[in-house]
Amino acid sequence: MQIKTPYLLFLGDARDQLAAKTAQGIAYWRPEWCVGQLRLTDCNANLGLKELTVAEAAKAGVKTLIVGVANRGGIISDAWIAVLNEALERGMDLAAGLHNKLSEVPKLRETATRLGRELFDVRHPTRPFPLGTGAKRPGLRLLAVGTDVSSGKMYTTLALEKELKKRGRKADFRATGQTGIFIAGSGVSIDAVVSDFVSGAVETLSPANDPDHWDLVEGQGSLFHASYAGVTLGLIHGSQPDALVMCHEPTRQHVRGLPHFKLPGIKECMEANLAAARLTNPAAKFVGIALNTSQMSEADALKEIAKTEAAYGLPTVDPVRQGVAKIADRLW
Amino acid sequence: MQIKTPYLLFLGDARDQLAAKTAQGIAYWRPEWCVGQLRLTDCNANLGLKELTVAEAAKAGVKTLIVGVANRGGIISDAWIAVLNEALERGMDLAAGLHNKLSEVPKLRETATRLGRELFDVRHPTRPFPLGTGAKRPGLRLLAVGTDVSSGKMYTTLALEKELKKRGRKADFRATGQTGIFIAGSGVSIDAVVSDFVSGAVETLSPANDPDHWDLVEGQGSLFHASYAGVTLGLIHGSQPDALVMCHEPTRQHVRGLPHFKLPGIKECMEANLAAARLTNPAAKFVGIALNTSQMSEADALKEIAKTEAAYGLPTVDPVRQGVAKIADRLW
Repeated sequence: MQIKTPYLLFLGDARDQLAAKTAQGIAYWRPEWCVGQLRLTDCNANLGLKELTVAEAAKAGVKTLIVGVANRGGIISDAWIAVLNEALERGMDLAAGLHNKLSEVPKLRETATRLGRELFDVRHPTRPFPLGTGAKRPGLRLLAVGTDVSSGKMYTTLALEKELKKRGRKADFRATGQTGIFIAGSGVSIDAVVSDFVSGAVETLSPANDPDHWDLVEGQGSLFHASYAGVTLGLIHGSQPDALVMCHEPTRQHVRGLPHFKLPGIKECMEANLAAARLTNPAAKFVGIALNTSQMSEADALKEIAKTEAAYGLPTVDPVRQGVAKIADRLW
Repeated sequence: MQIKTPYLLFLGDARDQLAAKTAQGIAYWRPEWCVGQLRLTDCNANLGLKELTVAEAAKAGVKTLIVGVANRGGIISDAWIAVLNEALERGMDLAAGLHNKLSEVPKLRETATRLGRELFDVRHPTRPFPLGTGAKRPGLRLLAVGTDVSSGKMYTTLALEKELKKRGRKADFRATGQTGIFIAGSGVSIDAVVSDFVSGAVETLSPANDPDHWDLVEGQGSLFHASYAGVTLGLIHGSQPDALVMCHEPTRQHVRGLPHFKLPGIKECMEANLAAARLTNPAAKFVGIALNTSQMSEADALKEIAKTEAAYGLPTVDPVRQGVAKIADRLW
């Protein structure tokens, strides 16, 4: 799966900025791929990109319209279909990461088939994966793990890719979730893979490579999240990380979505992830901690970062406030 | 999903007894459901059941023909289709646990649709599952875990169900794999569930129950198996076991299918499973060890069982040689 760039970001009738967070992630990390945005009249999100009609986007050379908005329930609403269909008519492919598939909307399927356009439902893997083998393969791999979901794992690995490339190193971000896939242009939505094949899918996603090449593998879930821990474990085993980064949001009180689960401590969480990682890579080790301090004042954030760094003896940064150079320094 | 009994066990052209191990498991655990077997001319497996044609099976009241044989590659061979189709014509449903679906064979689908018969592809979950919540629910649950795959987990939980029922206790075996599903008549083939929903599927499979009711949940995989550990972790979190039984095959040298992975020790494996289980049930504890000593002499087996019991201070049995009464005694 390789999604063609550049993109038109479709924000639809997003009820708020959060509903368009997929589009926001793409615009932040790949501004050079984002020609403009298309918003319906009742859209409450805005990325500050150039407003384009489908016709204008086609003229500007857009290759793919990305549905960068999530409806309640993941529905592809009737209000969207006319716009999406016009994009197909004007030469674009469509891509979405919703639970519902573009390819299951009869009108869109029919137009795409007639014109030879592609419909990318990135949440739904279209290819079979082999079983994982756990066999060591050449190349270096870093995996972001977290004390919870939504703690900055995608951001951290993308920032590390950027930093390593700036330094002239060989590095690739490996996307395991829908927003990451739009940013990378390819990847596997790992939480949608049949459970038996999760580690095998990750082995496929980060194949053998040059001995000095880093795969920066986007993490998912958390070993301490009762809904998703199995996905996380398959991801750990399949990616065989040489290096791990722990991601943590210091103000969070409980596991996201599960108020009856206290957030685990960083130490406990590092030990559990390291034990899991060492099954397929006995040399796995932590190389840094990434704190998401977006909910804290600058002064409190810096204090928390210094405190954490002292407590664990690992380079600790907020990737947004400070970048990830200190962690990249630790990668060999 | 509820498969109607009694069964006709179809052994097809099984190349050896092992190829018919699904049928063998059913015949062992549910002899009262197995009216007979049907073997093609080049079949090398034999369960010793009454040989029946489809016509004779129909007359004997069979409700479902079970495909109890695995071909290389999981294919539904042309040689089978005539027989399977005749079973539909004579009033039976069909059930199989292959990677390929009965419902994708045009001839079978057409006949089933025309006559209103059911095609059960138990390897392929047909219903969506919710995300796991980790919320504690009433009722008691036991889960079999193992140092490896194929170490006796299904056998152990079925034996415990039988023993508890004999004692007049409320107990249900909960099937998580294809053979278990045919034996129970229902269940979820957990390794075929989309990874995000594994723990939720297990929560659905073992719902709230009477406070003195035991769910005996069939285990799958192993936390130390690089291919399947994620499936196992979701199963542990979703089943919220109050009691765990460790299953182990003492003569095995390496993890099945992965010669480069040494089998973990029982102690290390118990610690890892307990740590995982305590996320959703802090009171989880081991109540016994089940050794599969089928590859050992009686004398060696008894020595190994005594040694293991002494080392871990837990009731230790080979369920086949000795039954599971000693473990059932520990269930409250």
